[in-house]
Amino acid sequence: MAALRFDADDERYIRELSEYVAIPSVSRDGDPAVMRRAAQWLAARLDFARPRIVETRGFPVVVGQWMGRPQAPTVLVYGHIDVQPTGDIDEWLTPPFEATRVTGPDGEDRLRGRGVTDDKGPSYIAIETCRQFLAQEGALPLNVKFLFECEEEIGSPHLADFVHAHAEELGADLVISADGAMWRTDEPSLSIASKGLLALDIEVEGPNRDLHSGRYGGTVANPIHALVELLATLHHPDGRIAVEGFDDGVPALSDEERNEIEAVPFSEEAYRADLGVDQTHGEPGLGTLARLWTRPTLEINGIRGGGSYTVIPHVASAHLTCRLVAGQHPDAVYEAIVRHVNAHIPRGTRVGISREGGSVPAYAIDRDHPAITAATAALAEVYPNERVLLARIGGTLPATTLFEDALGAKTLFFSFAYADELHHAPNEFLRVRRLREGMRAWEILLRLLGDGEHRLAQRAREEAIA
Amino acid sequence: MAALRFDADDERYIRELSEYVAIPSVSRDGDPAVMRRAAQWLAARLDFARPRIVETRGFPVVVGQWMGRPQAPTVLVYGHIDVQPTGDIDEWLTPPFEATRVTGPDGEDRLRGRGVTDDKGPSYIAIETCRQFLAQEGALPLNVKFLFECEEEIGSPHLADFVHAHAEELGADLVISADGAMWRTDEPSLSIASKGLLALDIEVEGPNRDLHSGRYGGTVANPIHALVELLATLHHPDGRIAVEGFDDGVPALSDEERNEIEAVPFSEEAYRADLGVDQTHGEPGLGTLARLWTRPTLEINGIRGGGSYTVIPHVASAHLTCRLVAGQHPDAVYEAIVRHVNAHIPRGTRVGISREGGSVPAYAIDRDHPAITAATAALAEVYPNERVLLARIGGTLPATTLFEDALGAKTLFFSFAYADELHHAPNEFLRVRRLREGMRAWEILLRLLGDGEHRLAQRAREEAIA
Ligand SMILES: [Zn+2]
Ligand SMILES: [Zn+2]
Repeated sequence: MAALRFDADDERYIRELSEYVAIPSVSRDGDPAVMRRAAQWLAARLDFARPRIVETRGFPVVVGQWMGRPQAPTVLVYGHIDVQPTGDIDEWLTPPFEATRVTGPDGEDRLRGRGVTDDKGPSYIAIETCRQFLAQEGALPLNVKFLFECEEEIGSPHLADFVHAHAEELGADLVISADGAMWRTDEPSLSIASKGLLALDIEVEGPNRDLHSGRYGGTVANPIHALVELLATLHHPDGRIAVEGFDDGVPALSDEERNEIEAVPFSEEAYRADLGVDQTHGEPGLGTLARLWTRPTLEINGIRGGGSYTVIPHVASAHLTCRLVAGQHPDAVYEAIVRHVNAHIPRGTRVGISREGGSVPAYAIDRDHPAITAATAALAEVYPNERVLLARIGGTLPATTLFEDALGAKTLFFSFAYADELHHAPNEFLRVRRLREGMRAWEILLRLLGDGEHRLAQRAREEAIA
Repeated sequence: MAALRFDADDERYIRELSEYVAIPSVSRDGDPAVMRRAAQWLAARLDFARPRIVETRGFPVVVGQWMGRPQAPTVLVYGHIDVQPTGDIDEWLTPPFEATRVTGPDGEDRLRGRGVTDDKGPSYIAIETCRQFLAQEGALPLNVKFLFECEEEIGSPHLADFVHAHAEELGADLVISADGAMWRTDEPSLSIASKGLLALDIEVEGPNRDLHSGRYGGTVANPIHALVELLATLHHPDGRIAVEGFDDGVPALSDEERNEIEAVPFSEEAYRADLGVDQTHGEPGLGTLARLWTRPTLEINGIRGGGSYTVIPHVASAHLTCRLVAGQHPDAVYEAIVRHVNAHIPRGTRVGISREGGSVPAYAIDRDHPAITAATAALAEVYPNERVLLARIGGTLPATTLFEDALGAKTLFFSFAYADELHHAPNEFLRVRRLREGMRAWEILLRLLGDGEHRLAQRAREEAIA
């Protein structure tokens, strides 16, 4: 396979990426002028792709496209320009918006700075690879569109509207996300599934006002008692979810899947030690990784009622979220929970249940999808001594659903960020070697997707019909 | 029986009480100069009893004594000088520290102002009665000592030390509290029991840090799940407390007690309507009043953990209080709860339990105690058309235990405040007619206790031996 020549050292890459990091594009309570400056910096890097900065009702998005391969498939590269707030500035060892090259405790070169791994570095890798195709070969191996938003870290409040409104312009056979993170630092991995999300609130009301426990105690239902009684019915003591119908439609784990997951190197002992617990907990009959990757959850994330005095509060509430897996529909899960709650309302109380925010179904991409096979081959080429892990994500990636709904395209996560690089925390960093590893991997991926145009194009057509 | 002449109208009483109300003796973050001014006002009213203002490590106390009946019993009159904060000043219909005479919705004259019913008016009634004995008869019918503190509304942090240190000086056969409140406006009542109090905190810890539910959900015990599972075991669904040994030592309700309580006019329907609940709740087989008056409680007053996001918190906690009845010892109850909790620790968590603050055992005074018979007779004389109710208090009166421990004396609550007079709330008031009713009742009470000196003195001696 042909190969682009990348720089012999990382000096230029680091210099350019440092310019980008120096623009403090914090989207939470962000300064519109700063966000625009960051968007302009990125747009300038896309000069080969007719970049445009488009306003939304929030901060702008940057779009662009290079369509010089009319017969080839089209991919849409997604990433984000905005970064998380710095958090406590005193915890930063070097100034967050001055990218600083340091040696990590693992002996590896790191670049430290806010956004360097989420998502400025990974975006830079994708764009620089494309630039080198044009500089060295005069063309990309397939058509490439670009979409970078400035609001990912605040929940992408305007992305869905924008993508739906510009579905034709953004249309592609595959989305490749430069955002995300590989699961482990020591093994290259690709995500083939992520969980959906459903959030809900339960509120228990008792008397019409807070009551003095000496004047009313023992005569009227205490909403906290009622709430704990109700919530305790949601799980069996052994960890199984006790809500009837909750996992209707979820296929049992096949022996093949089970074997595959059990083959993934995973130390229960290290997991427990890291969390400081003497045992893991969850559905019986499954290991930790199988629980995490394949089973839906129903978690109480918050509970609140009363205070530290002798009062009987008149209300108590809880916030719950479910992580959903393939086969579950958020609406059906919600209805199952509502039925369960209504069947378990404690005496003398009124119970309200409500959904909070939009829900997201689970996402999955077939392991034999051409994007996965191409990405696996690219990683195998760059990391010849390591096995490429097909991982599942317990978390939720709403963009996957958006792109599937609006564009009919699956999303491949192809970020060279790693999960341990302090995303969202002080002292965020990117391992320097990922810059050239990532560019080489993107190069191979784009060549394979262009070269394998029949498979990707054929698959895309099949999916459009289905 | 001889009778003191009280004023033909309330003008002077209201004028003098208004002077007292005008001194804003709010003890929470109180101004020492203001507290002292209020203490001085009260001490001046005790000029017949060699008053002294004594410093404590907090605000001062006022003590005094008239000991002109060497052969008669001695009573100690207790009350408090301090008042609650005003709360939201905008909710007051008239300025809180300007006592204002208004007509209530019940057509009765009221005096409105902070402290007017808790406890300045009731204190004034007791003292004015004593003053009239001396003015009109030159003597009181028995020996009277006085103890007024300035920290009742902040939990009497220095009272116990003071009473123990001055036990000899304060020694009496009976304490009469001018603080407290009658149970109902339409029936005179006396309290013959109050509940004890035990407070505790339960904390459940899971992993060593808050966890992203997408990265760890379903694999590790969630402290909120564990806490609700644990707390749900404390009660049976029918309302009974499920902690073994919790009510060891509590006698079953006798048929006589049951009949007596059932004879008290009480509308379950009005109770439910007032609280806005469609049913009451508590131990089966007992009515609301029997539950309230005779049964211990175990209430979760506060619960807290996590927040409104998708995080698994590493800790969750609850605050509980027990109201105890006669027969229960706080230490034994606490041990029973500890045993229960330790037997129900959910898998994969660590549970901590701790007592919070001091505990108070239940208090009771025999219904045939001479103080009760005398007080009943006094109320019957003032309210000839109404039955005197012997009530029990679901709340806790720590002073009763203090006086019993330090002085070996029972406490009679003889306040002419009523429970509906907005104690601690904006627009606190006192019904004006209670001023003269209260004075007449105190007059009769003191005469009976002096006249019935053999019984009280004999009883006091018996108790000192027991
Ligand atoms: Zn990101
Ligand atoms: Zn009071």
